[in-house]
Formats: sequence, C-alpha cells, structure tokens
Amino acid sequence: MINVAVLGFGVVGSGTVEVLTQNKALIEKKVGDSVNIKYILDLRDFPDSPFGSLVVHDFNVILNDPEVSIVAEMMGGSHPAYDFTKACLMAGKSVVTSNKEVVANFGVELLRLAAENGASYLFEASVGGGIPIIRPINNDLSSNQIISVSGILNGTTNYILTKMESEGADFDSVLKDAQRKGYAEANPAADVEGLDAARKIVILAAMSFGKRIAPSSIHCEGITKITLDDITLARKMGYAIKLIGYTEKINDKVLAMVSPRLVPMSNPIGGVNDVFNGILVDADMVGKVMFYGPGAGKLPTASAVVADMIDIMAHTPSGIKAPVWTDADEDDIADFDEYSCANLFVFDAPLSELGEINKLISATAVYSENGRTALISRSMTEKEARELIATTSSLVTRIRVL
Amino acid sequence: MINVAVLGFGVVGSGTVEVLTQNKALIEKKVGDSVNIKYILDLRDFPDSPFGSLVVHDFNVILNDPEVSIVAEMMGGSHPAYDFTKACLMAGKSVVTSNKEVVANFGVELLRLAAENGASYLFEASVGGGIPIIRPINNDLSSNQIISVSGILNGTTNYILTKMESEGADFDSVLKDAQRKGYAEANPAADVEGLDAARKIVILAAMSFGKRIAPSSIHCEGITKITLDDITLARKMGYAIKLIGYTEKINDKVLAMVSPRLVPMSNPIGGVNDVFNGILVDADMVGKVMFYGPGAGKLPTASAVVADMIDIMAHTPSGIKAPVWTDADEDDIADFDEYSCANLFVFDAPLSELGEINKLISATAVYSENGRTALISRSMTEKEARELIATTSSLVTRIRVL
Repeated sequence: MINVAVLGFGVVGSGTVEVLTQNKALIEKKVGDSVNIKYILDLRDFPDSPFGSLVVHDFNVILNDPEVSIVAEMMGGSHPAYDFTKACLMAGKSVVTSNKEVVANFGVELLRLAAENGASYLFEASVGGGIPIIRPINNDLSSNQIISVSGILNGTTNYILTKMESEGADFDSVLKDAQRKGYAEANPAADVEGLDAARKIVILAAMSFGKRIAPSSIHCEGITKITLDDITLARKMGYAIKLIGYTEKINDKVLAMVSPRLVPMSNPIGGVNDVFNGILVDADMVGKVMFYGPGAGKLPTASAVVADMIDIMAHTPSGIKAPVWTDADEDDIADFDEYSCANLFVFDAPLSELGEINKLISATAVYSENGRTALISRSMTEKEARELIATTSSLVTRIRVL
Repeated sequence: MINVAVLGFGVVGSGTVEVLTQNKALIEKKVGDSVNIKYILDLRDFPDSPFGSLVVHDFNVILNDPEVSIVAEMMGGSHPAYDFTKACLMAGKSVVTSNKEVVANFGVELLRLAAENGASYLFEASVGGGIPIIRPINNDLSSNQIISVSGILNGTTNYILTKMESEGADFDSVLKDAQRKGYAEANPAADVEGLDAARKIVILAAMSFGKRIAPSSIHCEGITKITLDDITLARKMGYAIKLIGYTEKINDKVLAMVSPRLVPMSNPIGGVNDVFNGILVDADMVGKVMFYGPGAGKLPTASAVVADMIDIMAHTPSGIKAPVWTDADEDDIADFDEYSCANLFVFDAPLSELGEINKLISATAVYSENGRTALISRSMTEKEARELIATTSSLVTRIRVL
C-alpha cells in the first residue's frame, strides 16, 4: 500500500482527492499496488466531507509519518508551501505540485534536494493545467535543442481578450463579467498584469534551457492597456492579440518575457480562444509542435497532479530522469535590448506624413483608417523600437508581433 | 559507452543517424554516457556516406554482438522487420521503431517479449511522426479514463484535402501534384484508402483501452470519393472535411474506425491543415487536449525515434512503465452498427420533398442550393443510417460528422 498526503483542500486539492477516488481502480492497476490517501492538511475542518476524517492541521503529523511516501502540495503561495516541500524532500518523501510560484522561485533548490534524497519533485500541473507540456519537453523532445517556446499560458486573460473581440466590449466590462463567472479573481492583478504567465514561462525556459531566471527580473507586460480598437485593428490585418509568454536563446543566453502580441492567424496559437491554453514549442529536429487544452480548472489540473503521483508510484526512485536546473547568473540572461521581433506601430498621422519612419522600419504591411496609420515593422531590436518610440510624437500604440 | 544499431538507412533511418550525430553532445549529457552508432543494416552500400563504414548486410552481426543494447528499426513493412524485432527483444536488446505496420499487427507479442526479457519496445514515432502522443497517453494522461481519440493521422491525405479546398481543384489533380512534390507515394493507396491511418488509430486505441484490434478488421474508408463539391458545401455549412481516425468505447467495447468526417471549425482539429497532424484526446478528468505538429518527415520522425532511445538509455530497465496490450477478441470489439454520430446527407431533391426524411433524421442544419438539399442529421446509429441510405433514392452523399 502506498500512502499519500494532500496539502491544501482547496480547488485543486479537492480535485486531486476526487481523481484519486473516482479513478482508483484504474490508478491501482497502473501502479500495481493500492493507493491510500492518509492525510489532508488544511487549516479548516470539513465535517460534511466524506474525507473530513483525514484532515489534519499540523504538518508535522505528515512529515513524521514514515508511511507517507508521496505528498501533493496544492496550497498555493510561497510560504509555507516551499517550507513544507523542502521538509518533505529532505525526509525522502516525493512531492508533486501545481504551485507555479514555488516551482518558479525555488525549483533549482527543490530539484536538487529531491535528487540528493532519492525522491522526485514533479510539477506537470504548474504550467498549462492538465495539458501535457513539462514531461513532453523533458522526454519526448529530449533529442532536440529547443529553439523557442511561445504560449498562451493564462486562461483568464485569454478569456478576456477573446470576449473583448467576440462581444465588442472593453477591457473593464469583460473583466467584471469574468469575475462574476469565476474565471477571474476578485484581485485580478496576477493574471491581467502578466505575473502568472511570467512564472509559467520561467518554468518553461528552465525546462528548455536548464537555467532558471527569477520571474521578477523578466520583462513582463499585461493586457490592461489593450483596447478594443487594438483588437479590431489587429483582426483587420489578419492577427489575433494574445498574452504570450515567450522564451528563446539569443547568442546562447536565455531570454524570457511576457507581453501582449499580435499572433498571425496562420500560427496555430492564433486560434486558441476562451479559457484554453496553447503552447508552441519550436525545436531543431521536430520543428513546431503545439500542445492545447484546458489550462486551469479543478479536474484538469488534478489530472496532471495525479499523473505525476502515478509516475512516482509506478517507477523505482531512479526511474524518473529529472531535469537539472541551475540559477541563471547575469551571464546567462540575454540583454532584452537585443531581442528582436516585428511590431505593430499605430501613428496618429496619415501615411503620407510617415515617409522617413516607414523607411526606418521597412513596413511589411500597412493599414490606414480615419487619419491613423498602422504599420507592421521589419524585425527590430527592443533598442531600435525604444528609440523610435522616444522620437516619434505621433506614435500612439506599439504591440509586438509573434 | 552505449552501442546502438540502426536497421534501414532510408529516410527515417538516415534521419535517426543525423539526429544522433548532430545533437550528440546534448544527448550524451542527458544520458550520462557516450552513445555510439555501431552498425547500420541495409541491403545497399553507401560508399559516399560518412557512415558508409558502419553498414552491414547481415542482421546476425547485430543480433550476435552483445555490445549492442538498443536497436532502432526503421525498415518499414512487416517482414523482416517483425522477425528482426522479435529476435532482438528475445536477446534482451531494446527496440525503438517508427514502423506502424509492425506495431499495429504484432504489438501485443512484442510488448510481451520486451517485458519478459528485461527490454523495452517503444514506438512514439509510429503515430504522429514527431508529435508527442504515445508517451503522453501512457504517462501524462494516466490518471484518466480515455473517452475517445480523434485524429488527423495522415499528412498526405490532409495535404490533398487542404489543397482541394484552397485551390478549388479536384482529387486527381491534387494527388498528382502531391506526388510530384514527394508528399504522396507513386502508389498512394495506403494513404488515400485510409490504411495508414487505420494502423495508427489501432495503435492509439490499444494505448487508450489496452485492446489491440487488427487493422484489417476495422471500418476503413479513404478520401477517394470526396469531391470538391463536398468540400465546398461543407465549408458553407461551417465544417472542414478531414480524414479522421476515431476510437471510443461503446458499452465497454472498443470501436475504432477511419473515415472522412465533417469537422466543425470550433473543433481545434478543424484548423489542422496541409501535411500537419492533430490528435484530440478526450479524457474523463482533463477534458479535451490536442497534440499538433509535423506527422511525418525525416527529422521530425527521427526526433521521436531518438527520444525513445534516450528514454531507454537514461533509465534502468524497470524504469519505463510499458503499456500492457492484449489482443481484442470478439467480445472486446464494439458492433459497428451501434456506433452513432451526426451525418451530412445530401439529397438530389428540394427541401419541400423531404418532409418524411427530415422528420426521421431531425435535421439540425439545412442548406439548399440548385435543387439539392444538404441536411445535418441528429446522431444516428450506423444501422439507422444504412437503412436510410437503402430506402432513399434521392440521396447522393453521406459523410459522417465528428
């Protein structure tokens, strides 16, 4: 019998208990052993839950029980989730998690502690909810050098952008609607300012290139400045606007960033709508592969958490080849000034007045309307774009193109 | 040092050697050992190849060399590929392959032989080329009951259907063009008649439900009867026509089939065009996830072959949890008559003459043009649809809806 403990009986924690219970027969057949939920850690009591008797309030009960070999951490936040994870790994207990904040901030140390203590630290659910992406990068694409990863990594912002377009509504009213429906939190900052996506692209960058960059140190723009006009204009020019987490290597240094981007409709990510996530991996041998599905939600996220538990239960400790991360130092991180991409520039001026600027940015597409001119630039570095913005008084909008 | 052998120096075989050579440093870092291509088996000599000196013509040289622990079989066809695979596994050598014919026909025995002899038999490259799909079903979705899998599994036919629509051309002329470009073989029967897709859906059904059905015994229709008119009509009604491999469980019995289908544009598979493949897995906990990418080609396919090799090299023999398949007997296979789906029915009659039929099929959508009437039916069993077809003289087209 394998005994597991669940830390946090919130949305994903209760989903994890539900998956383990509902698909118990199937899971035990795959594992070749019986699986028992021995404890659920939560500050609250759940007298009406059939699992209420499993609830404990003291983490040490779990830590000190040698029968518990796998712990699923779904508490959210850095503390005490990180501290409990560290203690479990040091005690030789494997940990699985959906907690992107802990993985993005402390993944290097936690992966190292897992390896040192014959345990596993798995976090498929931390990016893309139920979508397989961490393990495919680690295993299926292991014969490849990753070139870049670009992803719609946050369902809330994708829902908002999709609804703004489909309903012709502005950001504020769609956000309120999303909050009513439970797709956005009362305090939506982590989603709409891009922080949630930043944590996830940091994890994907570390999976792809082995270097972890602090989420707080990457370029991160949210969607709060995107207007309905921007979305309508982009559509007329053949693009969707999406909040994109992006990572690539520039001269062997890692760049990671989050920003709104124009995505051409020919890119499979361009058609990823509503709360769905889509992650496109470009790799040197396979080319471009995309992973698509529900990026959040109780059972989808729990599906990935439990798959990680099965992976640990079905294998010997040495059976899982863990990724090795190191913390990026200054020399590992690309200078954001050197990142280049095409841009949408909108000028409050007719095309006839933009001759010099057009020469500078070698526009590949032009759209004019009501005295405004939209140009898609050649690929320009951030430095070039910044200089252009500083010297061009008629510029009203700049959005990068994926 | 790990010694490997490559059987077949054709497209995928030479791609495999290329991936192993080009990404040697990265692969050896992941494996923690050096990797040496010791032999390449082929009937031909390759005096101009830098790998020409590795070529042998006698399989027994490889079989009898105890230093060779992993064999990559890329010969194609059932024989001698199956025989060589069997001999390798019985000798305790692990085998990786892109050969869908061998996996679909002999997978049960070969997986059993691998388990009995402490070896692995991996075949990620046999479905979807470089797209991760076999391992994600086996690992990432292991906490789920699979409900259904639907996939665009053949790049040649998807290219033909895409070009018919985008160029307004008929099947024969697009096929000739595809043959000129190397996207279709001189003898295109295995692609356009659906056999290639049938082998792949048999493999996906076995991965999903544990039962292998003989490819020759599933319902298999190709795209040779699809006309430009069908495609144009479908588009007007909001659908793309795709060749779809499909599997689900009906009353605990496995159904697998290949046929052209109308795919609603709201289904992410509907936007998978050209030579790309897309596979949608519907599972009870995660919901719908899609895997998209290049379904064939030298380096994409070799990417998956080498990822399988790395998986074996990086793990202890017991480290890889292999799927367990059994051959489906009659009781395991669903009665095709009981399969139900919506259908496009086109009648050479105006809607006013179709009152009785419309009542029978409770059409959910109607489109009339030039005296013809197209109806999308309610979900009907194959038996119901067949009876309708037999008794309705004005029916000119029937295509299932996904």
